[in-house]
Amino acid sequence: MSAIRYELIKKCKQTGARLGRVYTPHGYFDTPAFMPVGTQATVKGMSPDELKSIEAGIILSNTYHLHIRPGEDIIKEAGGLHKFMNWDRPILTDSGGFQVFSLGDFRKIEEEGVTFKSHVDGSKKFLSPESAIKIQNKLGADIIMAFDECIPYPAEFHYVKKSVERTTRWAKRCIKAHENPETQALFGIVQGGMYKELRRQSAYELLELDFPGYAIGGLSVGEPAEEMYEMLECTVPLLPEDKPRYLMGVGSPDYLVEGAIRGIDMFDCVLPTRIGRNGTVLTSRGRMIIRDALYARDQSPIDPDCDCYACKNFTRSYIRHLIKAKEVLGIRLTTWHNLRFLLNLMKNVREAIKEDRLLDFRNEFFKNFGYN
Amino acid sequence: MSAIRYELIKKCKQTGARLGRVYTPHGYFDTPAFMPVGTQATVKGMSPDELKSIEAGIILSNTYHLHIRPGEDIIKEAGGLHKFMNWDRPILTDSGGFQVFSLGDFRKIEEEGVTFKSHVDGSKKFLSPESAIKIQNKLGADIIMAFDECIPYPAEFHYVKKSVERTTRWAKRCIKAHENPETQALFGIVQGGMYKELRRQSAYELLELDFPGYAIGGLSVGEPAEEMYEMLECTVPLLPEDKPRYLMGVGSPDYLVEGAIRGIDMFDCVLPTRIGRNGTVLTSRGRMIIRDALYARDQSPIDPDCDCYACKNFTRSYIRHLIKAKEVLGIRLTTWHNLRFLLNLMKNVREAIKEDRLLDFRNEFFKNFGYN
Repeated sequence: MSAIRYELIKKCKQTGARLGRVYTPHGYFDTPAFMPVGTQATVKGMSPDELKSIEAGIILSNTYHLHIRPGEDIIKEAGGLHKFMNWDRPILTDSGGFQVFSLGDFRKIEEEGVTFKSHVDGSKKFLSPESAIKIQNKLGADIIMAFDECIPYPAEFHYVKKSVERTTRWAKRCIKAHENPETQALFGIVQGGMYKELRRQSAYELLELDFPGYAIGGLSVGEPAEEMYEMLECTVPLLPEDKPRYLMGVGSPDYLVEGAIRGIDMFDCVLPTRIGRNGTVLTSRGRMIIRDALYARDQSPIDPDCDCYACKNFTRSYIRHLIKAKEVLGIRLTTWHNLRFLLNLMKNVREAIKEDRLLDFRNEFFKNFGYN
Repeated sequence: MSAIRYELIKKCKQTGARLGRVYTPHGYFDTPAFMPVGTQATVKGMSPDELKSIEAGIILSNTYHLHIRPGEDIIKEAGGLHKFMNWDRPILTDSGGFQVFSLGDFRKIEEEGVTFKSHVDGSKKFLSPESAIKIQNKLGADIIMAFDECIPYPAEFHYVKKSVERTTRWAKRCIKAHENPETQALFGIVQGGMYKELRRQSAYELLELDFPGYAIGGLSVGEPAEEMYEMLECTVPLLPEDKPRYLMGVGSPDYLVEGAIRGIDMFDCVLPTRIGRNGTVLTSRGRMIIRDALYARDQSPIDPDCDCYACKNFTRSYIRHLIKAKEVLGIRLTTWHNLRFLLNLMKNVREAIKEDRLLDFRNEFFKNFGYN
């Protein structure tokens, strides 16, 4: 018995998109869904209540960061990540792989696992399929991820092929190490770089392992958008209809819509929180650099069409002042708005699927946002 | 007709404390009151709604900082400080004098005013009684402060005497410059260093000018507590009973209670927000350094007796993690709690005055908090 269940509610007649619902031990969330990222057991700047107020259905947290600080044992003692951070809705944790591989020269990959240095104190650490799962078992998220290698872009065919095969071997070790399959759903991650043949190989190998859900990793790593869409178009159709599909690390508005159109159910990205902290906000008319002097005396809200706390209560002029003055409330308001913007976008995508007009929605949204 | 009205509700039979209410163009606040400090038009980390939820009746904002950034004209265009920051309860602005005098070598005091360098871009600035009032008129706070010299501690008698006399001359210029006496109440500031004779002289001179309220400045600047209490005991009895008395820059729990006992109605201090950001919290059992490893696995709230959002929802273990990881939510929670703690302390002080037991309350509170 899997920890989660995917319900396919409806397919869009205009696109390959699907409306669904994922049931977890901490309630359900509707798909296609965007997952705000709470790297260190907190979505930067937001309280759990605020996340609920903007209708976040599931959040993601990072195994690597939590392992380094405060450590999974402290979180386990608190009763798991949900209790630790006081979030009673679903949580997904990544495997730590992506962060470890991002360290570049500071890590060494071997069959057994990866040796790396802590970003906090420089101490030597080791992560393997077994330890990544063990940590995630202690954290207790509803959905956990297999330990994989996220391949850089570009990469040689032969390197990618070897890596894909190792990711499969690691996936098997993850399944074996997983202690709580009835309360935590372990997702496999399809890799394969920008090679369709290897994407297919990876998918086939992982399908045999019958994971309760599948992620597509190693995309949005610097390749042109068209190349990413091609990879999705060759991979998604191979994945089972009765399981959720998660495109990792993707969160710009265009990628979210294009991903949904290609049958993706789940997304995550630090984009809305990160650009918010730097003073950039997403609006129905495109990105806006709120730090700009242009807005110093602008008495309108960030986005007149938005219903978030920032837009209902504060002007561009005030928020610009807060960001310029490096005030916490400034970061809070831009983050709040950006997350609401993306969560609302996904809500609109779901509505459009329901009404078989996702392509029309896409064209209208892109036109207003300023995409071609 | 003054912009504010002070209602003396009751005097404590155990002490010199008074229960009162100050009516302003933006509603009333109960006294003795603690005013959270919103230096740059935001109480660091808090939203206006959160400030209301912890029953902040009035907040303070800093003229110097707002003059430098974003500039009083931008705030005036927004409809004044209340509209700019979306706070519809009373606001008090200081005169900018304290900040300017804190600059030390970077400023030059003359009869006309003070020349200083901006802390943001180093540009040369000038503040005088007239310009300090003009800026405050544009900001539009309910209570504004005269431009005075805050004397360092220790200081020579003759220097202080000259300074006190200049502060009186400046006070007259402030009254003359004030354009909105019917919507903004201008408070005079009694100075005099640690010399009773000069405190009396300052008070007498300012009383002749008939301000709608009086502040006591230049205390809590490094002198022993006893010396501060002596100054209060010689100054407060000279001030009119029908006007509020404001002890500037004071906000540690003991000073708040001792100040109230000596007849002070209003206080402000950055202490709760500043120490909160550094990971220190105030509790009914004393100060707690939440960063300490001692709390790494502590599943209890900061203060089990507290009703704030932080204490109702999160553990010491989690808050310690957030502070260690430099997360915004950590700063938010410690700030939230510390402000609630002081606002609640003042509420308890008001209750104790009502029931003529402020001395008993003081002794009990100090015993638990760990003061002698």
